[in-house]
Amino acid sequence: MVVTDPAITEGYRQDRALDPSAGKPLAVVRPLTTEQVQTVMRWASAHRVPVVPRGAGSGLSGGATALDNGIVLSTEKMRDITVDPVTRTAVCQPGLFNAEVKKAAAKYGLWYPPDPSSFEICSIGGNIATNAGGLCCVKYGVTTDYVMGLQVVLADGTAVRLGGPRLKDVAGLSLTKLFVGSEGTLGIVTEITLRLLPKQNRSSTVVANFPTVDAATSAVLGVSGQMRPSMLEFMDAVAINAVEDKLRMGLDRDAAALLLAGSDERGHSAAEDAARIAEAFGQNGATDVFTTDDPDEGEAFVAARRFAIPAVEAKGTLLLEDVGVPLPRLGDLVGGVERIAAQREVMISVIAHAGDGNTHPLIVFDPSDAAMADRAQLAFGEIMDLAVGLGGTITGEHGVGRLKRPWLANQLGPEAMELNRRIKAALDPDGILNPGAAI
Amino acid sequence: MVVTDPAITEGYRQDRALDPSAGKPLAVVRPLTTEQVQTVMRWASAHRVPVVPRGAGSGLSGGATALDNGIVLSTEKMRDITVDPVTRTAVCQPGLFNAEVKKAAAKYGLWYPPDPSSFEICSIGGNIATNAGGLCCVKYGVTTDYVMGLQVVLADGTAVRLGGPRLKDVAGLSLTKLFVGSEGTLGIVTEITLRLLPKQNRSSTVVANFPTVDAATSAVLGVSGQMRPSMLEFMDAVAINAVEDKLRMGLDRDAAALLLAGSDERGHSAAEDAARIAEAFGQNGATDVFTTDDPDEGEAFVAARRFAIPAVEAKGTLLLEDVGVPLPRLGDLVGGVERIAAQREVMISVIAHAGDGNTHPLIVFDPSDAAMADRAQLAFGEIMDLAVGLGGTITGEHGVGRLKRPWLANQLGPEAMELNRRIKAALDPDGILNPGAAI
Ligand SMILES: Cc1cc2nc3c(=O)[nH]c(=O)nc-3n(C[C@H](O)[C@H](O)[C@H](O)COP(=O)(O)OP(=O)(O)OC[C@H]3O[C@@H](n4cnc5c(N)ncnc54)[C@H](O)[C@@H]3O)c2cc1C
Ligand SMILES: Cc1cc2nc3c(=O)[nH]c(=O)nc-3n(C[C@H](O)[C@H](O)[C@H](O)COP(=O)(O)OP(=O)(O)OC[C@H]3O[C@@H](n4cnc5c(N)ncnc54)[C@H](O)[C@@H]3O)c2cc1C
Repeated sequence: MVVTDPAITEGYRQDRALDPSAGKPLAVVRPLTTEQVQTVMRWASAHRVPVVPRGAGSGLSGGATALDNGIVLSTEKMRDITVDPVTRTAVCQPGLFNAEVKKAAAKYGLWYPPDPSSFEICSIGGNIATNAGGLCCVKYGVTTDYVMGLQVVLADGTAVRLGGPRLKDVAGLSLTKLFVGSEGTLGIVTEITLRLLPKQNRSSTVVANFPTVDAATSAVLGVSGQMRPSMLEFMDAVAINAVEDKLRMGLDRDAAALLLAGSDERGHSAAEDAARIAEAFGQNGATDVFTTDDPDEGEAFVAARRFAIPAVEAKGTLLLEDVGVPLPRLGDLVGGVERIAAQREVMISVIAHAGDGNTHPLIVFDPSDAAMADRAQLAFGEIMDLAVGLGGTITGEHGVGRLKRPWLANQLGPEAMELNRRIKAALDPDGILNPGAAI
Repeated sequence: MVVTDPAITEGYRQDRALDPSAGKPLAVVRPLTTEQVQTVMRWASAHRVPVVPRGAGSGLSGGATALDNGIVLSTEKMRDITVDPVTRTAVCQPGLFNAEVKKAAAKYGLWYPPDPSSFEICSIGGNIATNAGGLCCVKYGVTTDYVMGLQVVLADGTAVRLGGPRLKDVAGLSLTKLFVGSEGTLGIVTEITLRLLPKQNRSSTVVANFPTVDAATSAVLGVSGQMRPSMLEFMDAVAINAVEDKLRMGLDRDAAALLLAGSDERGHSAAEDAARIAEAFGQNGATDVFTTDDPDEGEAFVAARRFAIPAVEAKGTLLLEDVGVPLPRLGDLVGGVERIAAQREVMISVIAHAGDGNTHPLIVFDPSDAAMADRAQLAFGEIMDLAVGLGGTITGEHGVGRLKRPWLANQLGPEAMELNRRIKAALDPDGILNPGAAI
């Protein structure tokens, strides 16, 4: 269970935020059971050794970055799952990939909706810890909406069961929900009870090109004001071209923006919705609108959208943003990011879960150009300030982690910060759980 | 704002739990603004005077029961609401009735789903504080699923904004969700940002009579294993007859149980679902199955189901239970309640949000018969023990309040109880917010 070989522990120092200042952990532990997690936490607590919980390390905010002289607790070997089709629930350990949870549910004709683009490389425990979002969240909600119960191990090694396979339960405080999104700072999630849905209907898909970013952002409002699409995604010109460079699927390289929308309503209703979406896109100045009822054709566009991050990454090192705003401010946000890019002389591509107002400005820079790297870093902070100024959030789904912590107080304000601190202190008085992350 | 006239304060001593031991408050305060709530809490905090938050007093668990020498803080005068159709959100004060929130949303063709049977007499703030459920929750979720942001006033008078009109936001701990369902023990909710949906589709409705309770509970599993009805409700023979006594709508007085189900899928899909539900009911032994696409006809049955509590109340004083179990244990729960009724020689009628496994055994007794009242009280506790023994909860939607507090530890266990206590102590160290309720 305990690994101290540097050749191995080296692989546990960073997550996808690739923080260069990641520490060198004392040891990596890979427990199999809740009891083993308790043993680790009891030892860590007695010795006041910091513990960084780690799922699959796909995080983008440095929440799983290792600390010098700390322990990395990886859940990768905790991989059991049982699905109960009668109650439409699954009970699983945290180390399974999101894709594996989906697959286990699908065996029974069931569906676990949350679908981060990283679904094949992120753990369900990490999803719980970050309250992960994804493409279908605009209709189906985020991870917390599917969590019925948790088992967590606290800083002192106590194991606690919260919630359970009861569809409604209001006994005591809503602690299950408190632990979702707590980024490993309150406890280690060792077991999860998930709510599943009957399998998703076939989707109709609409793809449209827009001559301006403004046209695309108004089209988003035109759709979401009148209906609930099952997907509503945005890519700017840089992302379109980066994806086209790699996939050669015939995307319009001259478009300023692309919107990708879907409806999974039953029967004819999906096609009806697709027609309404196409109409709203047209009314907002879309140049070409393409609609398809063929799931494979639709999936090709979804895959292209998912591929946007790696595709843009081919242009340089990325600083990946995750800011969100109330939907009517989406245009202001994207416009503001453009201005920041011009001013800081860095390329910033914007992709977005547009229907939720959650954008991912991708700041591209050359790490060997120190001045440029500094400008990228400035832009990173300015984008968060911009979002907060528009009534938005510094993080819609990736979490605060270590990267965004300096900006958190600016969004939350002193009173909410103090409330966060009081709860952290009440649950982890010695501060050994993921210190330096999130709060 | 401050009322001390006993003729008026008398009306604020009890909620619908009608706790005979309710205290006599020092004063009732009826603030209009968050600032006034802060003033009250600062004063109460300085003088260590307990404060009982109160919405519309429709609670069934004694959460709003007044305390001797305490203050009752009633939100009844905090009644503003603004709806934003573009973002599909509403910002409102806590004192509005649930029905008024629905109405304000409906003006813009929008829908606030959570629908406690008490929707015309309960406040939205009370709904937040209890995480209220209702009939459509089996498909649309409970109150917490619609709360995007809150403003709360803490014990010491600090006002804090949590969340906001951002569809996705993971900055900091999930404190908005922690306050939902906290039954006035962590803070006073003074403003709420709600997520709204496009208006509900027309529903198809299925009503069926069953010769045994077992047949009805298996029919519930037969439906929920394969689809998501928008309603799935249960009434036993006592409730059927009590409703029929009052409404004379032709319910079958000989049936052992009635199930009422609905689908609000779009277009033809609702009728398709209704046919599948009718089939599942038939396969599980339903004697008559009646299906209708006429919303008014459907609504008449829904109104009958909502009327069940007052109808049974005509038979005597009620002790109203709210236990829930994992769905496959529903039959065991209803059977167990029958045994308790026989053993304790009291009439217990069971109605249920069956699709969620959330039942309301209604214990009927004559308060002038002291021995019977005692037996009713015993049955009340035994039903909770039964539910916990079946892996269930002592409260699915009404909250723990003062009535159920002695049973909470039995469900949660010592570790989760301790966690509740630590959070309460961190947020309200002097214990002035609703002491004696919930935790
Ligand atoms: C290409 C790419 C696309 C992505 N797209 C999305 C997207 O669409 N939506 C989205 O939300 N995210 C996305 N992400 C980010 C990332 O995949 C998610 O944050 C994911 O939830 C992290 O899971 P993980 O298992 O990799 O967690 P890790 O990176 O290992 O950890 C993430 C955080 O969770 C904590 N943690 C992990 N496991 C536990 C546990 N069992 N108990 C307590 N704390 C724990 C860690 O301490 C850390 O703070 C993307 C990432 C990449 C690389
Ligand atoms: C006939 C009938 C049917 C019912 N059906 C249902 C049902 O289907 N589903 C359901 O969930 N409930 C139901 N209830 C119970 C009740 O209506 C709900 O619990 C409702 O949410 C209470 O709202 P209220 O405004 O009346 O709150 P109150 O009774 O005034 O208070 C309830 C609790 O909330 C706290 N509280 C109230 N306002 C605030 C605030 N602004 N800030 C902080 N704390 C506050 C109080 O301290 C108390 O603990 C029913 C009740 C009746 C009488």
